[in-house]
Amino acid sequence: MVSGSSLTSTSTPSISLLKDELDIVIPTIRNLDFLEMWRPFFQPYHLIIVQDGDPSKTIRVPDGFDYKLYNRNDINRILGPKAACISFKDSACRCFGYLISKKKYIFTIDDDCFVAKDPSGKEINALEQHIKNLLSPSTPFFFNTLYDPYREGADFVRGYPFSLREGVQTAVSHGLWLNIPDYDAPTQLVKPLERNKRYVDAVLTVPMGTLFPMCGMNLAFNRELIGPAMYFGLMGDGQPIGRYDDMWAGWCMKVICDHLGLGVKTGLPYIWHSKASNPFVNLKKEYKGIYWQEELIPFFQTAVLPKECTTVQTCYLELSKLVKAKLGKVDDYFNKLADAMVTWIEAWDELNPSENPGSSAAVKPNGAAKGK
Amino acid sequence: MVSGSSLTSTSTPSISLLKDELDIVIPTIRNLDFLEMWRPFFQPYHLIIVQDGDPSKTIRVPDGFDYKLYNRNDINRILGPKAACISFKDSACRCFGYLISKKKYIFTIDDDCFVAKDPSGKEINALEQHIKNLLSPSTPFFFNTLYDPYREGADFVRGYPFSLREGVQTAVSHGLWLNIPDYDAPTQLVKPLERNKRYVDAVLTVPMGTLFPMCGMNLAFNRELIGPAMYFGLMGDGQPIGRYDDMWAGWCMKVICDHLGLGVKTGLPYIWHSKASNPFVNLKKEYKGIYWQEELIPFFQTAVLPKECTTVQTCYLELSKLVKAKLGKVDDYFNKLADAMVTWIEAWDELNPSENPGSSAAVKPNGAAKGK
Repeated sequence: MVSGSSLTSTSTPSISLLKDELDIVIPTIRNLDFLEMWRPFFQPYHLIIVQDGDPSKTIRVPDGFDYKLYNRNDINRILGPKAACISFKDSACRCFGYLISKKKYIFTIDDDCFVAKDPSGKEINALEQHIKNLLSPSTPFFFNTLYDPYREGADFVRGYPFSLREGVQTAVSHGLWLNIPDYDAPTQLVKPLERNKRYVDAVLTVPMGTLFPMCGMNLAFNRELIGPAMYFGLMGDGQPIGRYDDMWAGWCMKVICDHLGLGVKTGLPYIWHSKASNPFVNLKKEYKGIYWQEELIPFFQTAVLPKECTTVQTCYLELSKLVKAKLGKVDDYFNKLADAMVTWIEAWDELNPSENPGSSAAVKPNGAAKGK
Repeated sequence: MVSGSSLTSTSTPSISLLKDELDIVIPTIRNLDFLEMWRPFFQPYHLIIVQDGDPSKTIRVPDGFDYKLYNRNDINRILGPKAACISFKDSACRCFGYLISKKKYIFTIDDDCFVAKDPSGKEINALEQHIKNLLSPSTPFFFNTLYDPYREGADFVRGYPFSLREGVQTAVSHGLWLNIPDYDAPTQLVKPLERNKRYVDAVLTVPMGTLFPMCGMNLAFNRELIGPAMYFGLMGDGQPIGRYDDMWAGWCMKVICDHLGLGVKTGLPYIWHSKASNPFVNLKKEYKGIYWQEELIPFFQTAVLPKECTTVQTCYLELSKLVKAKLGKVDDYFNKLADAMVTWIEAWDELNPSENPGSSAAVKPNGAAKGK
């Protein structure tokens, strides 16, 4: 485990929200030169770098960042046999960072994501927008046509029930990407030149009962509220699929948020996604996921968690049972995945002993969330 | 009934989509000078003007528009005793225009709505955008994080199930408003100076199972697919509430679209809403709605239509029964409203005899919509 810090000597250009309550998690296999562009925004925060692939390789981190770097040897040493639940040679390994963090909030970003500009040409502080999203409520029970009613200059429109205007706690903030859109391999192959140039100035709550494709590239969440559900599954080395890690986490997370009455937002902030990954390599990783997914979506759309499940951990363990019972017959991979989900929760509880496994995010199922 | 037309002599600046398949419905009590600003966009279309209030008053329509104007006397003459289902002294009267139209599509707009400009300063052809929305599919079963996947420069993102990418037919396109937002009286009173300045460059499908506040100010729909559900209820003169006409229609419509597998879009286009209505007058109209609504929303959220209902008419009649059974105890007004819903369908079928009441919008409940 490598650490670095020379934080105190640097100046920060703006107030750094939640500086001591948020970790930035970055999975990588290369030198982190991309951090130079993020320096004004990220430097006040602690970084958790999860080094994927060959642990003997040295990852260079620009000077002045406060970070801890974990490679595969660190993961194996810290988790012992439970390390098997952490993927190798796949960005799914990032969820180790969620496990090892001791902070309330997580922001995770890929190392090919740079600072985007808004239509006025101003550089976007993605982290600040995520924090705003997480600190303001969500509105999953009724759609507001002017989008996030808590933003400046907006509100609930006529016809929005007053009893729902308090909203619920926001668990997840899902950000988007300018330039290279997050397309699957078939779409990449068909539209190699498509770029996302549309800046949509909106944040909205994904309604209750609605699933969406959660991308892990530019994502923030309240670790105390939803952390144990953010497991990125078994992908990459030794596994039959890749590139479904964030999707898997997103579907599990959304079912649990819906059950517990927690909110999920998507929209702003944008990052600049610099380069498309190889569509041929992606197709190889994705192809099983592409057809398995046709069974996964109905599974998650109809998954019902028992009322007795009032914590994320108990919800997640229940979901793992449903995965085994209903998806095991799709492919034996899902039996392995269901077991890994259990291991993940065991690892979570082991590394986070101060959280009473019965009290983390104790919210009322399917109703207004109560704060911790 | 007053008619006007000198259409053929004018030139149109752009291709007028669906010129012979769309009527523009405008409820009004005043001279329609606002049409001057819309001339380049509306002149090729037929207007149905529903004159509210005193039928002896003359409404001036600018020269060069092709229109028919119906006042209360016309409504009474055409509908006979069934005219009782059409509201008086409330913009809910606009739904008479939907009834009398013979076209496939309807666009309805308030007379205090003007042409808005996009961020580049270009005037927005709201009607053209509505038509684009209506002619492209909707995606109610799964949320696409890059919004409408059928827009130029966008697509379905990674993780979007391929089996759902065909989408379903779009029944409704709900547009928004710059300048004066559509706030209820309490919000108007609290935020008298708030203006909507945010141009959100997005169109999105309101997910299945999610209700939203449908505003009638800037709205388009496929009359063949969903027309009989667009009844704006009993409001205004002699009724205990107002300003819930479009909301009522929106909730009924959404439940039926969800049942029949039809799509509802919201977002673009914007119009410029010129002036706020009087919040004190609005409060008087709204106050019963504000507390009744707290019972209406759970009602619509849990309303289930029988599988046997495969047309809009049968769905709507079934919904009227549920209204009577479940909302009649909230207030006797809902018994009257339920009866008016039945009258509305009778009037619809009488004025639209060529539509076989068993075949209009015959789509598969809760599945992929099939075209007529």
